[in-house]
Amino acid sequence: MYESVTNFIDDKLDMSIESLKALCRIPSVAAKNEGLEVAAGLVEMMLQDAGLHTEIHPTSGAPVVTGWLDVGAKRTLLFYDHYDVQPAEPFDLWDSPPFDPEIRDGRLYGRGVADNKGDTVSRIWVLQAFKETRTDLPVNIKFVVEGEEEIGSVHLPEYTEKNTDFITADGGIWEFGGAGIDGKQEAWLGLKGILFVELEVEQLSRNMHSSTACILPSAASRLIWALDSLKDQSSRILIDGFYDDIKPLSQSELEAIKKIDMHEEQLKEVYGIEEYLNGLTGDDLKQAYYGDPTCNICGLTSGYQGKGSMTVLPAKASCKIDFRLVEGMHSDDIYRKLRTHLNNKGFGDVQIPKHDGYPAAKTPVDHPFVKLVERANQRIFGEMIIHPTSPGSGPLYLFNEHVPMVSIGCGDYESKAHSPNESIIIENFRLTMHRLVALIDEMSRW
Amino acid sequence: MYESVTNFIDDKLDMSIESLKALCRIPSVAAKNEGLEVAAGLVEMMLQDAGLHTEIHPTSGAPVVTGWLDVGAKRTLLFYDHYDVQPAEPFDLWDSPPFDPEIRDGRLYGRGVADNKGDTVSRIWVLQAFKETRTDLPVNIKFVVEGEEEIGSVHLPEYTEKNTDFITADGGIWEFGGAGIDGKQEAWLGLKGILFVELEVEQLSRNMHSSTACILPSAASRLIWALDSLKDQSSRILIDGFYDDIKPLSQSELEAIKKIDMHEEQLKEVYGIEEYLNGLTGDDLKQAYYGDPTCNICGLTSGYQGKGSMTVLPAKASCKIDFRLVEGMHSDDIYRKLRTHLNNKGFGDVQIPKHDGYPAAKTPVDHPFVKLVERANQRIFGEMIIHPTSPGSGPLYLFNEHVPMVSIGCGDYESKAHSPNESIIIENFRLTMHRLVALIDEMSRW
Repeated sequence: MYESVTNFIDDKLDMSIESLKALCRIPSVAAKNEGLEVAAGLVEMMLQDAGLHTEIHPTSGAPVVTGWLDVGAKRTLLFYDHYDVQPAEPFDLWDSPPFDPEIRDGRLYGRGVADNKGDTVSRIWVLQAFKETRTDLPVNIKFVVEGEEEIGSVHLPEYTEKNTDFITADGGIWEFGGAGIDGKQEAWLGLKGILFVELEVEQLSRNMHSSTACILPSAASRLIWALDSLKDQSSRILIDGFYDDIKPLSQSELEAIKKIDMHEEQLKEVYGIEEYLNGLTGDDLKQAYYGDPTCNICGLTSGYQGKGSMTVLPAKASCKIDFRLVEGMHSDDIYRKLRTHLNNKGFGDVQIPKHDGYPAAKTPVDHPFVKLVERANQRIFGEMIIHPTSPGSGPLYLFNEHVPMVSIGCGDYESKAHSPNESIIIENFRLTMHRLVALIDEMSRW
Repeated sequence: MYESVTNFIDDKLDMSIESLKALCRIPSVAAKNEGLEVAAGLVEMMLQDAGLHTEIHPTSGAPVVTGWLDVGAKRTLLFYDHYDVQPAEPFDLWDSPPFDPEIRDGRLYGRGVADNKGDTVSRIWVLQAFKETRTDLPVNIKFVVEGEEEIGSVHLPEYTEKNTDFITADGGIWEFGGAGIDGKQEAWLGLKGILFVELEVEQLSRNMHSSTACILPSAASRLIWALDSLKDQSSRILIDGFYDDIKPLSQSELEAIKKIDMHEEQLKEVYGIEEYLNGLTGDDLKQAYYGDPTCNICGLTSGYQGKGSMTVLPAKASCKIDFRLVEGMHSDDIYRKLRTHLNNKGFGDVQIPKHDGYPAAKTPVDHPFVKLVERANQRIFGEMIIHPTSPGSGPLYLFNEHVPMVSIGCGDYESKAHSPNESIIIENFRLTMHRLVALIDEMSRW
């Protein structure tokens, strides 16, 4: 089926790689608000070249690029991607320039090749292949490509809330995925939610000589006590009502994760641990991975942090915390519960500036679209590991009510997204295009 | 008495200031191991100019300069000073260059003018005045001037342990002191001890994406729990046996501190607090100030500390702690108790690198030498506030068995030792020289 399309993909692989390189040469770093308009423009051009109609939707932040092709088919397939990338720092850890992609030993290296410009280009290029080979597309296509994924998709709701019709489809492909540590392809059906806050304590007009600690309050100690009140030593979160609204993993999710190999022993070495949190193993480990919320300290800061000793009583102390939220939890609700908890524990003076916050979202493991993706994958790669959710977060909740989404992609276990020497295996890039052709085929027969 | 000496001091005040400026132009920062030999050489030259014999004692660190003049008198007066200074950073907060002293509105500004080059020079200059006016010195004189006071006098024991004869004297003047917030001269009879340690926790091979916090241990949380176990919310230190060996303030010390005005309300504004630690006031506040040990967090560090959000599970977390020790406590003992405490609480994996450590030391408030200093001060300045101890630390214990010491000096409440725009009042510099002449006179009649 669609042999001319897959032949075109194979024959013109160099062209698709060049197209990807061109997009990766734009340092579209959302955290720095750089290169976003240029990258959005190039994505729009690529979509147009592939025969799609396009529109640029301004937001208070980076614009959202949409593309669509309505062929009057029964089914509609939607893609969610992003043209922004993580900062490339530290530059000196890269073996080749992050924004000048280079091929070495069958891998393409550069910032964004895995997360997620590789996926973006591969998905557009499949449509290019249909167009160039004059093959009739059997499904309708929609693209939503945003530019602030790496900073929490802060302005994406401005687009999605006003365009629920556009983001309604029969099935959608989310932005990331690839091969796991054992080389098997993996699909992720959900994303956890997040609440990112800081805790700030201020006790003195300025840092004092630490000899005065005998009569003055300590901001650092106060932060310690506040943090200690949040989580016990078995990592149980002590905020009143924190777990109340959690929707536990469903029976079918529990069955699905039974099949998953966590590669426990192999990953212990990667993580550098003797054992997992609280000695978790087997099914318990899996259930924590897919089903547990977290209260994690991302950063702690107070006083003197240089070499050697400096005797100071710091005026301030602060920390950054991310709560990963699972199904049923709401970031505003958890924020209120955190505030109430600190007030009740006598920490009403602790300030809690809030950054991101949004809920979890999942596509059911037994959804027909999931089965369809599995079948398409089977035709190209073979077995696929189905994760009911990623432990990470993303704005899936904005789409989830309107379209069942599955996250697959061209990455692999060594892709180092967010790190120096980000890369993809070029052969995976090629085969994920084949898988997409198979997916379109499967979808046309749904 | 000694009018020719005090006249010389007044007439040649400019010369003594020039001498001080010259010493302050040497950026002898022990923390950077810079300018120490040069400063030691200049101090030796000054001592020789003032008619003293000198010797330079090498140590594994900065050399110790000694000077002496044995006039065959009954009493011997010893001075402890240091030629090193704190770093001057941040330079941009200085109104004039830290290492090029400048006079403005009756104050001399520069790094070290207060702590403690001003004292060092004033003390040597008094002997210069005796020599220049051919006035017989009625007491024997000894100087010990070290070069690592600002980094914990780490190598001073190499000198003091081998030279107990030299540091034996009838009375000694320690390195700091001056006028308090109300302008009254203050004397400090003791210094607390110190134990400076770090707590280090490492849990992972490298920082991980924080989504893995659901299955991986957190170094930051572990540090929080370890720290929380050390001190309760009333700042009571929970280490087993921590308070066991404390020698409480003596009856005469308690009587002495009753006379002291802590300027509670005025200092609240300076500190920016509504109330002192645990609501301490009055005698309780004083007893805490002079008699309490501390467990103070000087610094906390883990993970991401930049702007905004970054979702990371930090591999490491650490903090710096200084324990101020009061009479009876020993730093090695407290270190062992801290280690045992953490082991017993299940934190055997927490590393505790140790920096400084030494015990407290005090001269009794009713010692005749203290009375003598009070009388000398009375003749020049009037009333003197006697603090049984400073809440700060210093290596007084190295001298204390061999010589009763009192800390007085030319500083004042606005001197900003250790901070930008360090300064002294030139009139205080002059009058402390007069006080020293009075002290020598009093001592000759002891």
